[in-house]
Amino acid sequence: MATDMILYWGSDSPFCWRVMIVLEEKNLQDYNSRMLSFEKGEHKSQEVMNINPRGQLPTFKDGNNIVNESYGACLYLESKYKSQGNKLIPECPAEQAVMYQRMFETNTFGQKAGDVIYYTWYVPEGERHDSAVKRNREALTAELNLWEMYLQKASGPFIAGKSFSLADACVFPIIAFLFRFGLCEKRYPKLAAYYNSVKTRPSIKASWPPTWLESQAENPQLLKDI
Amino acid sequence: MATDMILYWGSDSPFCWRVMIVLEEKNLQDYNSRMLSFEKGEHKSQEVMNINPRGQLPTFKDGNNIVNESYGACLYLESKYKSQGNKLIPECPAEQAVMYQRMFETNTFGQKAGDVIYYTWYVPEGERHDSAVKRNREALTAELNLWEMYLQKASGPFIAGKSFSLADACVFPIIAFLFRFGLCEKRYPKLAAYYNSVKTRPSIKASWPPTWLESQAENPQLLKDI
Repeated sequence: MATDMILYWGSDSPFCWRVMIVLEEKNLQDYNSRMLSFEKGEHKSQEVMNINPRGQLPTFKDGNNIVNESYGACLYLESKYKSQGNKLIPECPAEQAVMYQRMFETNTFGQKAGDVIYYTWYVPEGERHDSAVKRNREALTAELNLWEMYLQKASGPFIAGKSFSLADACVFPIIAFLFRFGLCEKRYPKLAAYYNSVKTRPSIKASWPPTWLESQAENPQLLKDI
Repeated sequence: MATDMILYWGSDSPFCWRVMIVLEEKNLQDYNSRMLSFEKGEHKSQEVMNINPRGQLPTFKDGNNIVNESYGACLYLESKYKSQGNKLIPECPAEQAVMYQRMFETNTFGQKAGDVIYYTWYVPEGERHDSAVKRNREALTAELNLWEMYLQKASGPFIAGKSFSLADACVFPIIAFLFRFGLCEKRYPKLAAYYNSVKTRPSIKASWPPTWLESQAENPQLLKDI
């Protein structure tokens, strides 16, 4: 029963998406869902700020318990509902090590993707430099090659091996963003195979960003040469 | 027994420090410790790169299990040695929620601190802007005020309440860095009280950055007006 839970989320946020995937995987679909618009500034509304002084999405409350940080919400849900739905942290220390390693490497992966995709959003006009754009694109390429290698060496179809885990919930949204912005499937065949396989999973389909069903990215070719 | 463990670390890294604190808290002091020099580029040595293709510290291996990401290493150690040493994740969901929330908010805290302290290190000379420096300092001030408020509202002497937890292991090194770079104790009395209290804890004293005992920061007044 997740009727005591409320999730405020935005459609274009990989951080929100990972929490939504975990809620699906743990069979907690009956949570209260509030989709907000970043464009309209709804993440800064009083309703959100009361729960999350950072005014960011996701904002998540379970009864009186607040966990807005996406990694934190994922771990909290897996811990509280350990025996419900799919097990998202393996028991065996060897598998757990890979799982935690990949899970938190998504922090760097997401940053490097964001530095390229959202450069003009993050950096004010007078502070932009072609040298920074070039460096960011090179850093993302290096990062993509690392993940391509991880998938090549993985002991199963998922990012940390045989089972879908919190690491997949955290990395899939980033990979989906990259392909939405034009990442070349031929240049990153393992990432493409992973993306095309995992996107059919029920938890992913059920939480697919609704705005993506309506329209393509503003700049759908941004990453085609990365 | 931690003789199968090896940690490569650098003295000026809050990310390394948090793993060292957890090793102390879990009574795993007999791990193999390799202090490396960032200045000499030892984090890019083949010995490290074989375990960590990112060439970053911490680099951590337990037998054949590799967890280099600091959050991951903390969670892995707490999970594997749950009943050894101090318990670093509370059982109760309400306490766990606060613990995870604070633990992962340190990601933003560390970034905002780094944006100020390491600006000239991260940003090439031709790309620096006074406007960015000003914005970064303002963002750090806002962040500090948030943490000051968290400590004011905390239900105990630690960052997530009554017990020392992974959240403390993750946040203490950042707070220690800020005071090393001149943060004003009078302006942030709760942070100062927390810092002065927690720094006497055995796990913190045992893992105190050795280079800090020898010399002060390069710019020990950098944050005095923040």
